[in-house]
Amino acid sequence: MRAQDEGGPGWGAGVPVEAHPALAAAAAAALDAYASATAAYDRAALSAVVADGADGTPTMRVDVLVEDAVLAALTPHPVNVLTEETGWVDNGSAFTLVMDPVDGSANAAAGVPLSAFSAAVAEDGVFTEALTVWLETGRSWWVRRGVPSPLRTTGRTEVAGAAVSLLRPHPADPGASAAWWEVARRAARVRILSTSCLEGALVAQGATDAFADAATDTHRLVDLAASVVLAEAAGGAVSDVFGRPITLDTDLTKRWSGIVAATPDLAGELAEILRTAFSADLRADSSADSSADSRADSRAGS
Amino acid sequence: MRAQDEGGPGWGAGVPVEAHPALAAAAAAALDAYASATAAYDRAALSAVVADGADGTPTMRVDVLVEDAVLAALTPHPVNVLTEETGWVDNGSAFTLVMDPVDGSANAAAGVPLSAFSAAVAEDGVFTEALTVWLETGRSWWVRRGVPSPLRTTGRTEVAGAAVSLLRPHPADPGASAAWWEVARRAARVRILSTSCLEGALVAQGATDAFADAATDTHRLVDLAASVVLAEAAGGAVSDVFGRPITLDTDLTKRWSGIVAATPDLAGELAEILRTAFSADLRADSSADSSADSRADSRAGS
Repeated sequence: MRAQDEGGPGWGAGVPVEAHPALAAAAAAALDAYASATAAYDRAALSAVVADGADGTPTMRVDVLVEDAVLAALTPHPVNVLTEETGWVDNGSAFTLVMDPVDGSANAAAGVPLSAFSAAVAEDGVFTEALTVWLETGRSWWVRRGVPSPLRTTGRTEVAGAAVSLLRPHPADPGASAAWWEVARRAARVRILSTSCLEGALVAQGATDAFADAATDTHRLVDLAASVVLAEAAGGAVSDVFGRPITLDTDLTKRWSGIVAATPDLAGELAEILRTAFSADLRADSSADSSADSRADSRAGS
Repeated sequence: MRAQDEGGPGWGAGVPVEAHPALAAAAAAALDAYASATAAYDRAALSAVVADGADGTPTMRVDVLVEDAVLAALTPHPVNVLTEETGWVDNGSAFTLVMDPVDGSANAAAGVPLSAFSAAVAEDGVFTEALTVWLETGRSWWVRRGVPSPLRTTGRTEVAGAAVSLLRPHPADPGASAAWWEVARRAARVRILSTSCLEGALVAQGATDAFADAATDTHRLVDLAASVVLAEAAGGAVSDVFGRPITLDTDLTKRWSGIVAATPDLAGELAEILRTAFSADLRADSSADSSADSRADSRAGS
């Protein structure tokens, strides 16, 4: 690996020695299993849907191979586990790993080298530690609450001039499309990297100003938990477009429209822009689409 | 670097020994200069605009540092050179390097680890060889015409179901915005990685199906030249939305709306979708915006 990938303030190469032993074991297993899986299988095999995950979405072979290896590596570390595919495993521990073994599965399966292992540790229900590891390079971002971190966001407070990563647009959803486009219109630059956890880590590192789900309610807790800890340690903020709290919850059917931002002010402005554009479109469409009102109501009432 | 970054069919790690000596020297110098620049300077310094490039766009410090090192490394290799910043340097050689020393400058300067050295070799005016090197990891894609390459695109022939990378949208341009959105609506997945040469290499490698400039005429020859050689060697095709040929031209003010696609059929369908959506919007707006017609005329007449 080249010199510039040895690291920077708050990020480095590989699994940090200071990490919680369960977190470290899970990350190391994910790196190994990912390398083995991508060496052994081609794109068609990696992307083949082999099951339905505990979160209700289809599970690709690459997800299963890595998650199985991670869970096996956790046998000597009987923490509770919440994952995308397996769901909630209660081992009666004070510690819970909220984990996405392969964030950016579509990238990983296709060969776009942007996927990540990402997990947060909750202690008695409160997130205290997080680690995101870029699976194709080993670059990693780790923080623990109470341990000073040199990670720093850009500190940007306004959408004007900001570089914002977005989840890909959902053109079949008019309200979410209006919200997506409004951010693209106001920000200086938008990117779609298709890997929520890496995009969150890049906000914490100060490489981008924000990352958002433009009101599509696609985010699950495993997509956001590590970013909550990383971004907050770096001076940033994580919130939901519709104001729902992002806290430990073992119900994997819950969804958020997450925002990871360099500052609380930027998170707030993004949420307002997204919510306003989403709702304005719904009002315009409400006479034609009776489902729109109930959808807005359900989000507002959450 | 981890095992999976050792390479795959047609791509590998580092500068290939088979490359033209001038191309190899330029790429090696770019890797070293990029590592030094990102170690020595912070984001503000790397992104500072220090000049206007020969192509008429602002030049960041990271561009200058790497391009200066590349040109110095070419002193023992007196080929002709066409670059983003310096422009056309005629050394009376049969060989010309068409080169972007740092593709994805905004990524590189900000710390988003997606930037590339990318160059094509033209021999007596015809592109014969190309090399794209991911600057943050050393991953490289190289082909020479006449040398069989194991690089293979996905072979996809239709936009329906395709994974398409796009340049970021330009919301101030209604025709281009309509074109961008129409591809997002029809494709299975869109990404914006903000690095044309890496996105072109990923099409050649078969990780994505296509990459396109949605009718914004942002692409310069240095953004497309390497992808022409890489994609065509892999079974793909490179074309322009408005049908302009992409050939060696020393006029750096020329622009294209490039399409790099897994197959000629996919390139053709993308061009038609983009051109149709772009023109339909222009017709709808022509009474309100007198500049639109002349713009469409200038593209159609190119």
